[in-house]
Amino acid sequence: MNFDPQTLRYDEKGLIPAIAQDHESGQILMMAWMNADAVRQTLETGRVTYWSRSRQAFWVKGESSGHVQKLVDFRFDCDRDCVLVVVAQSGPACHTLRQSCFYTAVREGAEVELMAPLIDPA
Amino acid sequence: MNFDPQTLRYDEKGLIPAIAQDHESGQILMMAWMNADAVRQTLETGRVTYWSRSRQAFWVKGESSGHVQKLVDFRFDCDRDCVLVVVAQSGPACHTLRQSCFYTAVREGAEVELMAPLIDPA
Repeated sequence: MNFDPQTLRYDEKGLIPAIAQDHESGQILMMAWMNADAVRQTLETGRVTYWSRSRQAFWVKGESSGHVQKLVDFRFDCDRDCVLVVVAQSGPACHTLRQSCFYTAVREGAEVELMAPLIDPA
Repeated sequence: MNFDPQTLRYDEKGLIPAIAQDHESGQILMMAWMNADAVRQTLETGRVTYWSRSRQAFWVKGESSGHVQKLVDFRFDCDRDCVLVVVAQSGPACHTLRQSCFYTAVREGAEVELMAPLIDPA
């Protein structure tokens, strides 16, 4: 790999926001954070890997839940300070078992729930 | 409006990341930042308004360029610490005059440009 993850721009904590989008539906699934090593691992393994700010550890998405994200395309923005991972998502992306973390809208001043948790067949 | 923007979770600088997605194509256009007042203004005016970290000022998207974002739906994620604005975008979203800021991919270790600047008919 010639691409150097260090050429992206990280914040003062060494992190860059990463948006995950479903490669088929275009649905935005979640937003989490990566550091340069998580970017490198994601590109090298094809398994989307974030940096967990709460656990201060690598977070290979789906490692415990099975809800993995297979990398389809890796993109970044004009300022090189935000990543977009286009993914094939197994199962729900959200820890609430909803397809996407963005399941709440504000409409006419009220919070509206847009989707219900998926029933896990397992 | 009953929804209180202060119920979202902002970082230590009082900011929350906001992803803009085109309401028709599903394309992810850009990512920028809002503070609670920018959230309030966005909801009240229907014109997407960010907080410019470089200028330390409100940034009514398109105010100078004309490339405005009309709010179609306002959503936030399960942790209440990331916003998704679904928008009707006039013209290109990116300051480089590309439709989206995410015009660069990393493929087989190389940076690949996915889209060219739009020609402004004006």
